[in-house]
Amino acid sequence: MSAPVRRTGGRSAAVLSAIRYAVEDLVRERGAEKVTIPLVAERAGVNPTSVYRRWGDAATLLNDIATYRLDPDRELPHSGDLRADLIAWASEIVEHYRKPLNAAILRGGSASAGEQETECLRNRRAEALVIVGDAGPAADEIIDGIIGPIVYRAIFLPWTLDEDLAVRLVDRLVPA
Amino acid sequence: MSAPVRRTGGRSAAVLSAIRYAVEDLVRERGAEKVTIPLVAERAGVNPTSVYRRWGDAATLLNDIATYRLDPDRELPHSGDLRADLIAWASEIVEHYRKPLNAAILRGGSASAGEQETECLRNRRAEALVIVGDAGPAADEIIDGIIGPIVYRAIFLPWTLDEDLAVRLVDRLVPA
Repeated sequence: MSAPVRRTGGRSAAVLSAIRYAVEDLVRERGAEKVTIPLVAERAGVNPTSVYRRWGDAATLLNDIATYRLDPDRELPHSGDLRADLIAWASEIVEHYRKPLNAAILRGGSASAGEQETECLRNRRAEALVIVGDAGPAADEIIDGIIGPIVYRAIFLPWTLDEDLAVRLVDRLVPA
Repeated sequence: MSAPVRRTGGRSAAVLSAIRYAVEDLVRERGAEKVTIPLVAERAGVNPTSVYRRWGDAATLLNDIATYRLDPDRELPHSGDLRADLIAWASEIVEHYRKPLNAAILRGGSASAGEQETECLRNRRAEALVIVGDAGPAADEIIDGIIGPIVYRAIFLPWTLDEDLAVRLVDRLVPA
C-alpha cells in the first residue's frame, strides 16, 4: 500500500479558480452585499459545504478574493530610488481599486474585517517594508500615509482615486 | 456657537430612536452583517415598509445609524489654536470608533458606500473645514491625513486606535 499523496495543485487550484470567477461574476451582477455562499457554490459548480468550511461566510470569502489579484509573489519596484519605488507601488494599489469590481469586492469584504488583520493588509504592509528597508518611513507611516487614505477613498470616494493620488501621498512622506 | 434646536416631531423622532436602538442591539447580538431590515423593523416595532422606504437596504441603514452619535450640531473645538482644535476634533472621532459597536456599524455600512458620498463623511469634512478656516490644511489633506487613516484603522486594525493616534496624525499636518 502506498502512502496517500496530498495534492496541492490540479483539482484544488481549479476549484479555487472557479470560485474566484463565480464571486467576480456575482459581484458584477448583483453587488457585493447580495453575494451569498450558496450562490457562489452553485455558480462555481462546487459543494457549498466546502466553501463554508474554508471561508465561513460570504464577507470573509469576498475579503480573501479581493486581494488575490495583487499577487504577493509579483516583483516589487526596486530602482534604488526610494521615492520612485514607493510611488510605483502605491500607484499599483490605486490602479487596482480604480476598477469598480475591485472596489466593490473591498467594500463587501470590509464587513468581515476587524477581528483579525486581513491577508491583504499584511501583504501590502510587508511589501512596503521590503521597499523602504531600514532607511524609509516606518510601518505606521505607510499605513497612515499611503494604504489608509487609498483604501478609504476606494471605499467611500472611489471617484477621487485619480492618477496623481499616489504621488501626492508619497510626496508627504518622502519629499522630492 | 450654540446648537440650533432641531424639531423633527414627536412620533417620527420616537420611531427613529426605536430604529437606532434596534440596530445597535442587533449589531451587538449578531454582528453587523447579519442585520436585516425585517429584523430591525420587528425589534423596533415598526412597519418594515417604512424602513425600506427611508433606507432601501440594511447596509444603507447601518451607514446612516453609524454616524448619528457624532451629532453634526454639536459644538466644535474653537480655542483659536488650530493644532489643538484639530487634535480635539480628531480625538473625538478616534474615541467614537474605539467603541466596538461603532466600528462594527461602520464595517457593516461600508458595504453600501461608494455610490455616493456618505452623510458621515460630508459632515466630518465640513467640520474640519470650519475648524481650519482658510489658514489650515486643505480638504484633501484632512481626508488623506486624518479621516482616511482613522477610518481605515477602525475597519481593519481596530486594536491600533490608541490615544496617541490623533496627535500623531495632526503632527504630520500641522507640526507643533
